[in-house]
Amino acid sequence: MTPAQPLRVGMVGYAFMGAAHSHAWRTAPRFFDLPLQPQLTAVAGRNADAARAAADKLGWDSVETDWRRLIERDDIDLIDICTPGDTHAEIAIAALEAGKHVLCEKPLANSVEEAERMTLAAETAAKQGVMSMCGFSYRRTPALALAKRFVEQGRLGEIRHIRAQYLQDWLSDANAPMTWRLDKSKSGSGSLGDIGAHSIDAAQWVAGQSVTGVSALLETFVPERPLAGDLVGLGGHGDLSGDAPRGKVTVDDAAIFSAKFDGGASAGAIGVFEATRYALGRKNAMRLELNGTKGSLAFDFEDMNVLSFYDAAESPDAGFRKIFVTEPEHPYVGNWWPTGHGLGYEHGFTHQVVDLVTAIGEGRQPEPSFADALQVQRVLAAVEASAANSSQWQKV
Amino acid sequence: MTPAQPLRVGMVGYAFMGAAHSHAWRTAPRFFDLPLQPQLTAVAGRNADAARAAADKLGWDSVETDWRRLIERDDIDLIDICTPGDTHAEIAIAALEAGKHVLCEKPLANSVEEAERMTLAAETAAKQGVMSMCGFSYRRTPALALAKRFVEQGRLGEIRHIRAQYLQDWLSDANAPMTWRLDKSKSGSGSLGDIGAHSIDAAQWVAGQSVTGVSALLETFVPERPLAGDLVGLGGHGDLSGDAPRGKVTVDDAAIFSAKFDGGASAGAIGVFEATRYALGRKNAMRLELNGTKGSLAFDFEDMNVLSFYDAAESPDAGFRKIFVTEPEHPYVGNWWPTGHGLGYEHGFTHQVVDLVTAIGEGRQPEPSFADALQVQRVLAAVEASAANSSQWQKV
Amino acid sequence: MTPAQPLRVGMVGYAFMGAAHSHAWRTAPRFFDLPLQPQLTAVAGRNADAARAAADKLGWDSVETDWRRLIERDDIDLIDICTPGDTHAEIAIAALEAGKHVLCEKPLANSVEEAERMTLAAETAAKQGVMSMCGFSYRRTPALALAKRFVEQGRLGEIRHIRAQYLQDWLSDANAPMTWRLDKSKSGSGSLGDIGAHSIDAAQWVAGQSVTGVSALLETFVPERPLAGDLVGLGGHGDLSGDAPRGKVTVDDAAIFSAKFDGGASAGAIGVFEATRYALGRKNAMRLELNGTKGSLAFDFEDMNVLSFYDAAESPDAGFRKIFVTEPEHPYVGNWWPTGHGLGYEHGFTHQVVDLVTAIGEGRQPEPSFADALQVQRVLAAVEASAANSSQWQKV
Amino acid sequence: MTPAQPLRVGMVGYAFMGAAHSHAWRTAPRFFDLPLQPQLTAVAGRNADAARAAADKLGWDSVETDWRRLIERDDIDLIDICTPGDTHAEIAIAALEAGKHVLCEKPLANSVEEAERMTLAAETAAKQGVMSMCGFSYRRTPALALAKRFVEQGRLGEIRHIRAQYLQDWLSDANAPMTWRLDKSKSGSGSLGDIGAHSIDAAQWVAGQSVTGVSALLETFVPERPLAGDLVGLGGHGDLSGDAPRGKVTVDDAAIFSAKFDGGASAGAIGVFEATRYALGRKNAMRLELNGTKGSLAFDFEDMNVLSFYDAAESPDAGFRKIFVTEPEHPYVGNWWPTGHGLGYEHGFTHQVVDLVTAIGEGRQPEPSFADALQVQRVLAAVEASAANSSQWQKV
Repeated sequence: MTPAQPLRVGMVGYAFMGAAHSHAWRTAPRFFDLPLQPQLTAVAGRNADAARAAADKLGWDSVETDWRRLIERDDIDLIDICTPGDTHAEIAIAALEAGKHVLCEKPLANSVEEAERMTLAAETAAKQGVMSMCGFSYRRTPALALAKRFVEQGRLGEIRHIRAQYLQDWLSDANAPMTWRLDKSKSGSGSLGDIGAHSIDAAQWVAGQSVTGVSALLETFVPERPLAGDLVGLGGHGDLSGDAPRGKVTVDDAAIFSAKFDGGASAGAIGVFEATRYALGRKNAMRLELNGTKGSLAFDFEDMNVLSFYDAAESPDAGFRKIFVTEPEHPYVGNWWPTGHGLGYEHGFTHQVVDLVTAIGEGRQPEPSFADALQVQRVLAAVEASAANSSQWQKV
Repeated sequence: MTPAQPLRVGMVGYAFMGAAHSHAWRTAPRFFDLPLQPQLTAVAGRNADAARAAADKLGWDSVETDWRRLIERDDIDLIDICTPGDTHAEIAIAALEAGKHVLCEKPLANSVEEAERMTLAAETAAKQGVMSMCGFSYRRTPALALAKRFVEQGRLGEIRHIRAQYLQDWLSDANAPMTWRLDKSKSGSGSLGDIGAHSIDAAQWVAGQSVTGVSALLETFVPERPLAGDLVGLGGHGDLSGDAPRGKVTVDDAAIFSAKFDGGASAGAIGVFEATRYALGRKNAMRLELNGTKGSLAFDFEDMNVLSFYDAAESPDAGFRKIFVTEPEHPYVGNWWPTGHGLGYEHGFTHQVVDLVTAIGEGRQPEPSFADALQVQRVLAAVEASAANSSQWQKV
Repeated sequence: MTPAQPLRVGMVGYAFMGAAHSHAWRTAPRFFDLPLQPQLTAVAGRNADAARAAADKLGWDSVETDWRRLIERDDIDLIDICTPGDTHAEIAIAALEAGKHVLCEKPLANSVEEAERMTLAAETAAKQGVMSMCGFSYRRTPALALAKRFVEQGRLGEIRHIRAQYLQDWLSDANAPMTWRLDKSKSGSGSLGDIGAHSIDAAQWVAGQSVTGVSALLETFVPERPLAGDLVGLGGHGDLSGDAPRGKVTVDDAAIFSAKFDGGASAGAIGVFEATRYALGRKNAMRLELNGTKGSLAFDFEDMNVLSFYDAAESPDAGFRKIFVTEPEHPYVGNWWPTGHGLGYEHGFTHQVVDLVTAIGEGRQPEPSFADALQVQRVLAAVEASAANSSQWQKV
Repeated sequence: MTPAQPLRVGMVGYAFMGAAHSHAWRTAPRFFDLPLQPQLTAVAGRNADAARAAADKLGWDSVETDWRRLIERDDIDLIDICTPGDTHAEIAIAALEAGKHVLCEKPLANSVEEAERMTLAAETAAKQGVMSMCGFSYRRTPALALAKRFVEQGRLGEIRHIRAQYLQDWLSDANAPMTWRLDKSKSGSGSLGDIGAHSIDAAQWVAGQSVTGVSALLETFVPERPLAGDLVGLGGHGDLSGDAPRGKVTVDDAAIFSAKFDGGASAGAIGVFEATRYALGRKNAMRLELNGTKGSLAFDFEDMNVLSFYDAAESPDAGFRKIFVTEPEHPYVGNWWPTGHGLGYEHGFTHQVVDLVTAIGEGRQPEPSFADALQVQRVLAAVEASAANSSQWQKV
């Protein structure tokens, strides 16, 4: 076997997402056969010492303190963007224009306008064989990929209901500290863009339908929060003193919206979405349920190796079947462990690398493309517009 | 012990709800000590033979073919209304004016206007000691009554999220027959009033908060259905030939709406509701979840003897606690079986009789009053108004 | 329709089981069409006042203070035995010899010798059309009856594993009071006969196989308990003072045994059984799981309306299917409520009455017969023999 | 920070366990701070080409075709034994005598005699600072480690019941091929040693008690299986033709045994164990439940990120609390992802490396020691002895 050509990666940012991406780049070739061999060539971060420490810990060969330098380097083939949303457009467009493939974390951008420019850049670059993908990693959860397969096989019939919740609780404590995720200038939006975007992408992708309109309600429960020294972290459970200086929360804490879908060949489904970081006790309940004319599917990321499937043809002895998605025939699973040995959160990122590298190696457009992610961005914008307009129906 | 005075009941209607009510009237005094002794005195139905057969089966002493006659009889103390919603107002008002206590099935009426007249009649009658109650029987599920107790004890703190689903699937089959429940002139509305009304009442009652506004989406998936001979039944799974004459479905098949609550002493919660008869595989999934600042509660009627409770004070070892609501200390439960022996659907109706008879015996207003049910009716009306107006926010 | 002939019942005992049986006799004819019309003619109890109060509460027409008098009465057709096990043989045999049908609570007796005499009496009486049945009421749980149907349909293939647990926790507290259930002279055995007997009957009945041998371990965790005034109750949670006089517990607190089954036409299954009242948190976890060559079934009475079924033919997308046993096609269910409205503990007793009365009406031997119950008694005896002999294998 | 000293690893075997161990060696230092830096120095396998391919895939620097050569090399500090059980003793003793630390897969050996020799060698080596550990990796599942913490904190009180099941189904198909795991000369025993050994170790470790005696039943359902070319694999679902030559299965397919525990300071618990590869639908159901006087714990590896805990002090509102073991305070978890993002099967191996390397770095004996594993081996031997002697009680 000829050794695979290298795919030299430069990553921007090294916090939560950076750690997940690094693990994926290191691990993918150990369990999957890839057409290109990923190399963790360089990581960029503004603080040189911190970046160096991160590089050592995460396994990167070198460090840059300016992402622009990463793009300039000849020994980098792909830019992996793991920074807050306000920087995505600038980095991604520059990288694409420099002929680097791009993997960009979600949401694609903080506005539709940015996402449109990025998509234009991506489409231009694609003509030169330079590829791009947005990091909606939940698509790579085997149970959700199996859900999509079931829909494509027609096992649900015509889909009538889509029900998506993304429930977390890490902001329930009104004294949990301010973070960049609560600053609209950094993050674009709150629960909506951070976790609701995952629900929108997953719902559209699994159902094979696009949202055409929404009616929405946004709510901010805690308008000010204690300022911690570091605004980069995820938030966590720090219970700061009530006397600490407080910063203004400028994003939604929770988003609720109803939706209509285009239905593809059939009549469209109706959907209901909820995203919040205040559902006490729900830690990462990214849930999706689809009800069709022939069957139903249900998923909850808190039990991520399970897909529940209801097949009406089995009536009157039908019931939701709890499929333990660990069989070799299931998406991605055969490359891991024997049946019954579940995967964890980070496997989605490894599968994302597998799909991205495979598409690049085969000269195909990876999915989700920036155009796919732009569509999600448009839904986010429509949600905000409806919420600002007395929940009136807003076309996407 | 002095034998209890009798409470002589006349029931109108004897289908699904009539059977449930009859069981409750028969059974309540066998397990609970009541201040009055219910007697199944008479049942009314238009078809004399059918009514006679029902009376024999269900245990009623006599039969009338006109509900007006039931109200005229001196040996009837209480009228129990188990008919479709279009008849509630006329029967209930006549009964109250005749000095009969009234138990009226939900939804209270088919319009706010009717409900207002009924409430006025109820309040006038109450001054004479004539009582009335609306049959939101889910309040009497021990697990939901325990949920309310937890909220009142402050174990949830301030409630932020209310999430209510009522999912059924008995209309998933597009050839399931037309029934009176799909005829707006009989039923007032579809999923919204039939099952959504239960969710609204339960959410408001458990949370101790009232809905102040909504934004809604209604959908009718199957606009025409085969006409069966009998439009009175529940529908069932009859798979009629495609050639049968079809009737027009004039109600919603599914209702989705977001809501704001008044919050009582604290900031109000936001809510999301969904009611449908097309969620394939969900048979009677009447679900309610509340997330507060201190704790959360979750309930699903498909597992009706369980209440899930999350207590943040137990962090980091907190988790949803699956309370098997079968302890003698739990609401209603001590009168039944030893710990661990669950109750069924009909027990809610028995408890409803217990609460109603106890209130009458003690000269108190039973709950939910017609005024409570009118408030639910106003929410239903607001949902329909919003849905008819591009989902725009509609105050209740 | 000709009115059904009456079936006049005399019940002995009116505690927990008496209340359950009374409800069943009252309720069965309201939901099912029976060939004979049960009448609650008389109840017998030693204390006249208490028996009179029970009769009034439970709906019996008259009272006797000696069960022998009940048997002598001409207006009694059936004797329903709801007393502790030490009295079963004498009452049942006398009743059968007097030409009364008999329903006898489980376990059939306190010894194999008694059970043999009862079985002989039953077989003699049966030749005269006098019928008898033992009250293994769990057979009448719809989900377990469906399980048996699945086995009979061959959906499990050849059964290899049977796994039965009956876990309760009401004796976990070492100061819970002494009751007759802990006195071997009254109850015969402890967890073994009280709840383990249910597991044995259910396992054999559902699997269609009989236990041929066992190896067992019995344990008594708390050898003495406070004496409460009344030893008749179920025990409950009374937390008596440590200074109360204490009585000796003479039965097993927990029983564990492995078993082999005869397999009917095929190779036999192996089984593992556990019965205890010390499994803190398990309230009435009567669980049964069967693994075959084609499928598996799992049941837990704490979720009594659900049967879990695994069909290997669906592989690789197989999974335990959670069948909500509330469809009209499911055993017993069609006579109750619409799909999705679950039943409770007492419904098993109502179904038991239905099956018993139907068999009597049709002149058939009801099941389980005394002979069936004798076989269970033999397994109980073998378990005790093995436990007393260093767990050595004991043939049944 | 001074760079950590290297810990140069040589691994023997590279199949299922080898892949898991390789991943652990690669990944541990990326998420945890270790006192020594693991290096994947060499892997040994008899087939040079296959070993070379495995080394490339799994990330090992060099290859040996004889494990003895691995032990001779100066640049190897630790031998990681991932081969079938018949080779453990020879390799481990040679390695320890050569001054190499040893990590040995479980079960420690195929006989008590071998395990005793290994333990002697381990204890001799330990005096020279040469450490050894047996790979009971389930101890490193965060939920099970949390369970042990709860027991040590006294949250269960005195433990009365231990219930351990390890249910798989990959041999349900009678035509699944023969593998080395079914050949007693290679594997020592069947389900008993392969998976039952995990249950024994986990039960003893979590409970802090040792098994003192057992009564057992072993069963082989399928005595012959088709011979596939390669007997090294896990077996899988290959459905071979009935005409293939068949090999004799010389191990147990299923093991059931009851046990008594020594109880430490308190009265001992009783236990029931079951291990099988024929529980159709159970893929890797390694379950453990403990019931104490104050609380209970339940775990199932099929939902590996959850620990269920029942605290009787919360009565009457107690219930099994589903702890999602993903909080930073939980064992191992803080080094991974934010709350709510679950781990997978292989994380246990990574944690095993973390604990082993930390112990070696600190000059402490890692756990479980060979002596701990010898105790498990003695239980396995007692189970086999009891099963061979009519299930008679066998002291350990």
